[in-house]
Amino acid sequence: MTMRPGKLYGLGTGPGDPELLTLKAVRALGEAQIVAHFAKQGSAGNAQKIVAAHVRPDQALLPLLYPVTVEIEKDHQDYRSAIAGFFDEAAARVATELEAGRTVAVLSEGDPFFYGSYMHLHVRLAHRFETEVVPGVTAMSGCWSAAGVPLMQGDDVTTVLPGTLPEAELVRRLSDTDAAVIMKVGRNLPKIRRALKSVGRLPTAVYVERGTMEGGLAVSLADKADDHAPYFSVVLVPGWKGRPQASAANEVAA
Amino acid sequence: MTMRPGKLYGLGTGPGDPELLTLKAVRALGEAQIVAHFAKQGSAGNAQKIVAAHVRPDQALLPLLYPVTVEIEKDHQDYRSAIAGFFDEAAARVATELEAGRTVAVLSEGDPFFYGSYMHLHVRLAHRFETEVVPGVTAMSGCWSAAGVPLMQGDDVTTVLPGTLPEAELVRRLSDTDAAVIMKVGRNLPKIRRALKSVGRLPTAVYVERGTMEGGLAVSLADKADDHAPYFSVVLVPGWKGRPQASAANEVAA
Repeated sequence: MTMRPGKLYGLGTGPGDPELLTLKAVRALGEAQIVAHFAKQGSAGNAQKIVAAHVRPDQALLPLLYPVTVEIEKDHQDYRSAIAGFFDEAAARVATELEAGRTVAVLSEGDPFFYGSYMHLHVRLAHRFETEVVPGVTAMSGCWSAAGVPLMQGDDVTTVLPGTLPEAELVRRLSDTDAAVIMKVGRNLPKIRRALKSVGRLPTAVYVERGTMEGGLAVSLADKADDHAPYFSVVLVPGWKGRPQASAANEVAA
Repeated sequence: MTMRPGKLYGLGTGPGDPELLTLKAVRALGEAQIVAHFAKQGSAGNAQKIVAAHVRPDQALLPLLYPVTVEIEKDHQDYRSAIAGFFDEAAARVATELEAGRTVAVLSEGDPFFYGSYMHLHVRLAHRFETEVVPGVTAMSGCWSAAGVPLMQGDDVTTVLPGTLPEAELVRRLSDTDAAVIMKVGRNLPKIRRALKSVGRLPTAVYVERGTMEGGLAVSLADKADDHAPYFSVVLVPGWKGRPQASAANEVAA
């Protein structure tokens, strides 16, 4: 008798609030024998916390632990080799479970295909196994909803920018878009602040930290006194030029 | 005795598949006495269909029907006046319910703050009433997940473009981004196709129609023989230059 392989789910867990799981994510989670998740050494990872209430004792967790080498500079060849090797190995571990007939849900914070690590497994496994991607609410949607900041409307062009870009590049792109979402803020915040100021968009920019989680924070960036920011905070730059007037305070407080 | 006003929910219903509602959306829907939704004359609207299984007989539907004047050209002053008047009137109708102490859930396909009509009510009401925005899975996430196309990764810049932009503008922006999502495709498809071809990105572009709904379709745009497209179809242009090689056929079929 030939073993029928298991099914692979790329499962979006949403931005942090466990209530922002979709019904489909909960159902897919229930079907899985193996719940795989990316995490750093010594940390359970956010995705696992988000789904904790739905994981049964008979389901096995499969942590995929990033190598310590993620501390190396990202454009360094050693980093690229280590991380590619890590994803090859992680895919092999998931493949072993699938080949044994077990259904595997790979958790992915936010939406799996929107900057998610799951993508590295998808491109290695989806052509070999039955695969379904369960989309999730992105971190940026969680942030602008929690902040109460309507961001884009009608024919607005929206640009998603990593805060890691050089300052001149941030300036160029921020001056050529209606709405923008700046991710990977962290220690890039002073540079992001200067770029927004130079294009005259600091007054409407909103800084959001831990959007839909406990202790979440949304403030006008101009009012944020310090430059301390966790890596996963975001800066929102509203578009929607034709909008009715409303005060920035209302937007953030809503 | 003073009436305590009701609560306003801007409620994201996700991209179409009723299973892509969040647990929070289902809970908020259960709390509402009034379920408001935007629709055209003579059509129930998609959002209402998505939540149909969760609406109880004791909840009242409040359809907010777009005026027939949406057929006027969008940059015409008559259109702007009619649509602003419509949103003022819709906001007044919702406010009446809130003032009477009833909780109102305003349905919004996808995510309320990502190009959603709910935003027009939010800016008119959120400063007057207790308001909560429940983020949803966007249509674009639904599309790229259904198509199995990983779109953006790492430090990719992503641009969301309306297909209504002039061809030269599409060309300029498509040549200056890693990943792109082109919305409002419809009769703009021939122009979008030409723009993608001229920047050499037609071979990897994927056309998606009714992403997560019944009869959904995802094909390589280069393989799509005709230029027929509904307004709400999207074209996905993958970034992620450093990705491992995988054939386009696998991506679409996954």
